[in-house]
Amino acid sequence: MADYETIEVTRTGAVARLAFDRPDAHNTLDRRMAEELVDAAHDLVSDDGVRCLAVTGNGPAFNTGADLTTLAGDGTDEARLRGFAGHLHEFVGSLLRAPKPVVTGVNGVAAGGGLGPALCGDVVLVAEGARLEFAYPRIGLSGDGGSTYLLPRLVGLRRAQELAVRDEPVSGREAVDVGLATERVPDDELDERLAAEAERLAAEAERLAAGPTRAYGATKRLLHRSFEQSLERHLGEEADAIAGLTNTEDYARGHAAFGDEEAPEFVGE
Amino acid sequence: MADYETIEVTRTGAVARLAFDRPDAHNTLDRRMAEELVDAAHDLVSDDGVRCLAVTGNGPAFNTGADLTTLAGDGTDEARLRGFAGHLHEFVGSLLRAPKPVVTGVNGVAAGGGLGPALCGDVVLVAEGARLEFAYPRIGLSGDGGSTYLLPRLVGLRRAQELAVRDEPVSGREAVDVGLATERVPDDELDERLAAEAERLAAEAERLAAGPTRAYGATKRLLHRSFEQSLERHLGEEADAIAGLTNTEDYARGHAAFGDEEAPEFVGE
Amino acid sequence: MADYETIEVTRTGAVARLAFDRPDAHNTLDRRMAEELVDAAHDLVSDDGVRCLAVTGNGPAFNTGADLTTLAGDGTDEARLRGFAGHLHEFVGSLLRAPKPVVTGVNGVAAGGGLGPALCGDVVLVAEGARLEFAYPRIGLSGDGGSTYLLPRLVGLRRAQELAVRDEPVSGREAVDVGLATERVPDDELDERLAAEAERLAAEAERLAAGPTRAYGATKRLLHRSFEQSLERHLGEEADAIAGLTNTEDYARGHAAFGDEEAPEFVGE
Repeated sequence: MADYETIEVTRTGAVARLAFDRPDAHNTLDRRMAEELVDAAHDLVSDDGVRCLAVTGNGPAFNTGADLTTLAGDGTDEARLRGFAGHLHEFVGSLLRAPKPVVTGVNGVAAGGGLGPALCGDVVLVAEGARLEFAYPRIGLSGDGGSTYLLPRLVGLRRAQELAVRDEPVSGREAVDVGLATERVPDDELDERLAAEAERLAAEAERLAAGPTRAYGATKRLLHRSFEQSLERHLGEEADAIAGLTNTEDYARGHAAFGDEEAPEFVGE
Repeated sequence: MADYETIEVTRTGAVARLAFDRPDAHNTLDRRMAEELVDAAHDLVSDDGVRCLAVTGNGPAFNTGADLTTLAGDGTDEARLRGFAGHLHEFVGSLLRAPKPVVTGVNGVAAGGGLGPALCGDVVLVAEGARLEFAYPRIGLSGDGGSTYLLPRLVGLRRAQELAVRDEPVSGREAVDVGLATERVPDDELDERLAAEAERLAAEAERLAAGPTRAYGATKRLLHRSFEQSLERHLGEEADAIAGLTNTEDYARGHAAFGDEEAPEFVGE
Repeated sequence: MADYETIEVTRTGAVARLAFDRPDAHNTLDRRMAEELVDAAHDLVSDDGVRCLAVTGNGPAFNTGADLTTLAGDGTDEARLRGFAGHLHEFVGSLLRAPKPVVTGVNGVAAGGGLGPALCGDVVLVAEGARLEFAYPRIGLSGDGGSTYLLPRLVGLRRAQELAVRDEPVSGREAVDVGLATERVPDDELDERLAAEAERLAAEAERLAAGPTRAYGATKRLLHRSFEQSLERHLGEEADAIAGLTNTEDYARGHAAFGDEEAPEFVGE
């Protein structure tokens, strides 16, 4: 694994864990983090040995978006914001297109440019004490990081407007009910929250890493593409994907084990 | 009605009922059923006398997808799966595009290739004891049958991922709350379940068959196309559809009866 | 403000209020209203001094769609319905594309051609005693006014089918839970309902008018476009929008005030 300054990347078996690692700065995104996220995403998506990618934050925050102290607050920021958004979008886009499952563990506040990364998982675990916020209108900006792409697709247009135009935060307690997160991780105090989230994230990532990686990748891609394309084109892509997967070792193992008590041992190939 | 081996097609008034009819094989899809479904769908969609199409399963299962005993479990299945998917997609696509309402009665388990047919109705009735499952990852495959097209559009991306990537089954009890089904049919034992579902399905189909068929067909098509197209194009299609319907007998009857106590008697023309 | 016969347009500070004003005819749309709505929308969307647009109905109804007494009930209505739909769609489309927030106050029944205008707000307030109805099948027609565009995007395909194919009305009490409305305004008797809705509508519009108008406009547009376009194109539009907004006075004010107790005073430029 490459050596990073602002993020931490670790590997346990087929699971890679990527954590935002500027805890004293609430894991805000600076230029360095934006660049490191892109490099790490490219490495982890390309590495066939990584069969599940877990994303979380070190310290009490998940990610609170661009570090405003690095912005001037005027028109000279235009190029800087293009730079931030360009890197952030390459990171989020890489995870959304990754041919393997991504699970995010929202350990604390995810706001602004941190919201898209929190929501881009195929499975999103959220600690009860966490908080999801759009936050952009507070500084007179519109959303980026995939937030305005994901919100309507996750929770429908009305709830998306509530979150983004009204800028109403969603607590970890509510996030599953509204459809932002998959599962809630109970916690009490901050330390318990971080420990519970880390443990649950590792368990979920391990479970997904033991699955049929290519099938997950194909299903994930099909789910993402549903809204934007016609029935006919989508059915064609479904047929191509399922037929192509018959050539994998995991299909052979899954087919052989069908009806057995024991689940097949998938190898991700 | 044509004579079929693996499905049963019956007709009562303006309602056609199509039932998967391999009860001893949990209504799995074999090559024969795949072909018969396409023929039946073409007939029933083309027949203007059929004003509502009801789809269900005979026996305790709805449809449990491809019959795995007819697959080899290796790369030689690629062409076979293209064949299955091709037929299944022509069936599901025909129902989704049909210019008349389709109601599905999910009497029991709908899994794998049986999930799309269960979900493709304009109205989906589900027996409490039924179960909806994605199931594909268990054999290392991705979804087909329109399942990955319909899931995000029905329940949003997050719930779709939960069903498809995590492969979590949804019970008949939960299916309405999450947005997969329209209405729950209460039941107790298996026999009661099948009787209750059949009765409710017939009643709903009869009600829809008595409605303004062409208006239903146009509305259905517009709802399906919403996500994938721009506002401007969609508004144009709405205008074309509503203006075109003024030439129907049902509009004349509906307009004449407006404000009356009695509902108009629609003729489907 | 121009002088209108069938609608009432008033202005308070940066808020414009547009009310359907044929209370004795349940605010049905006639040719005159359709034309006046288009003129008013063009004026209010173009006027940079208007930073929030509030839409509601005078009297007990919100808007109950086309005035059927102006229709013949036969094929000669085809051109008339194209005319109605053309105007209604220009009105609804203008609000959906407006670079400023729109809040609708659904004071009473919104049905048929009145449903799209009720649902097209970025914030939709609904009085408990109000009712949202598709209603088109009753007269043998399909939906217009953006209703079939908005319903699936707001509440998913299944709920949209329930509302539109089954034609099931939604009460003001249920509208928030299903995702049609943002917030419910409690009421008791008719007079209290109208007073409560008017007060809540004015307060919400005032709040939105004090926000970063251009940022709201960009976010709104991005949320509307999510479903229909690819991830890559959407991320590009997010980057263009957020970078472009750095040139606004509201960004300078928002950035300067970040971390302050007091919210910035936005000017809409």
